Amino acid sequence: MAPVAPDDGEPIGTAVTATALDETPIAFADPAYREAVVDLLGVIAYGEISAFERLAEDAKLAPSLEDKVAIARMASAEFAKVGPLHDRLTALGADPYAAMRPFREAIDSFHDRTDPADWWEGLVKAYVGDGLADDFYREIAAFLDADTRDLIVASLEDTGHAAFAVDRVRAAIAADPRLGGRLALWGRRLMGEALTQAQRVAAERDALSSLLAGGVDRPGLDLAAIGRMFTRLTERHTARMAELGLES
Amino acid sequence: MAPVAPDDGEPIGTAVTATALDETPIAFADPAYREAVVDLLGVIAYGEISAFERLAEDAKLAPSLEDKVAIARMASAEFAKVGPLHDRLTALGADPYAAMRPFREAIDSFHDRTDPADWWEGLVKAYVGDGLADDFYREIAAFLDADTRDLIVASLEDTGHAAFAVDRVRAAIAADPRLGGRLALWGRRLMGEALTQAQRVAAERDALSSLLAGGVDRPGLDLAAIGRMFTRLTERHTARMAELGLES
Repeated sequence: MAPVAPDDGEPIGTAVTATALDETPIAFADPAYREAVVDLLGVIAYGEISAFERLAEDAKLAPSLEDKVAIARMASAEFAKVGPLHDRLTALGADPYAAMRPFREAIDSFHDRTDPADWWEGLVKAYVGDGLADDFYREIAAFLDADTRDLIVASLEDTGHAAFAVDRVRAAIAADPRLGGRLALWGRRLMGEALTQAQRVAAERDALSSLLAGGVDRPGLDLAAIGRMFTRLTERHTARMAELGLES
Repeated sequence: MAPVAPDDGEPIGTAVTATALDETPIAFADPAYREAVVDLLGVIAYGEISAFERLAEDAKLAPSLEDKVAIARMASAEFAKVGPLHDRLTALGADPYAAMRPFREAIDSFHDRTDPADWWEGLVKAYVGDGLADDFYREIAAFLDADTRDLIVASLEDTGHAAFAVDRVRAAIAADPRLGGRLALWGRRLMGEALTQAQRVAAERDALSSLLAGGVDRPGLDLAAIGRMFTRLTERHTARMAELGLES
């Protein structure tokens, strides 16, 4: 039996199919909210596809077959997250490919500008870059309806590359301390390029950026709160660099 | 509770842990048989890892994001087959990485010599090359104990790239008939390189090639039967090329 849309007298956005979503949260009655969620699911989905591609590329640089298999396993795990995000986009009446398209250029630019020169730079990028993106999406997810939030949080779950990257990078720096200096610079560059592309997306996607400002039934962020969010993101970045044994 | 080894008075190979395999087939009492199975699982597992890498590489050539996602999905599906093969190798008391190692050179050489020049060559290679390898492993699996045979047959299941490749390649040839001539040549080259590497493996791995000769409790192949096997493999190759709309 098809689930029945909640009949609470509020209009339901025409693009939302009530049969596909078990319960259409009232927030979706606001077209700007729906648009922001479609944007967010689209950017995360394309980010996972890019993560797959990048990890598969890093697998070629792996110093051993064991490392190659470990990275390939992570790549597959990232890709496995795309399906549920696409399903949700379809349930929201959106075309998953159209939803991802606006973010290709920013994400591709980030990857083009941060092409790892070797296995170690690839590992640091996987750990630091994905960690930063995940933290950012998690911050935004806090402003969403419960279903969307749960889906996003699940799609950000670490698939094991954190521990693997930390283990391998620490061992490599212990064996060659000069590597630590180069990778610390690399980590700063990753942070800079990520902020550049994030600002570009925020400037281009009104719905997504106005999501942070809140709505009738959702809390928003004032400038001080946005400042605190960036402080949290920076602190977590610093913690990840320290985990790798690197200065940030 | 750990399963109990069948107590039928026959010696069990020391390298086979009875607690790990539900039932240790009598065939494993023959060390040459076990060695051949370890070889076979090793070569198939490394083949799947290579398939993952190659498909992930092909994804970069995809003409659209939809095609990219379709290929990435296949790459992940190939990689998902590695785990069960590794588990079985471990259960047989073998190190999965040591089991794969002897086949890296032959499989890597095959891929180095058949690096696709474009998206279409990649699709034909995925369809024709994997089809040929799968047919060959399926022929060998017929000579194995039921558990190993089932595992191998499951690991060869088509993960959807056949229909995808056929659909895309036929459409491309319809749009540009000259492409058909180039891809037909490419298909013949794939067959030739595959046979070259298969002969190399057969010459180097005694256990694997003597598997086909049979044992006390297993039927073997005489020269006429081996000839018929190659006829079947060639016929299926021709059928796949025809399916793509190509002469073989």
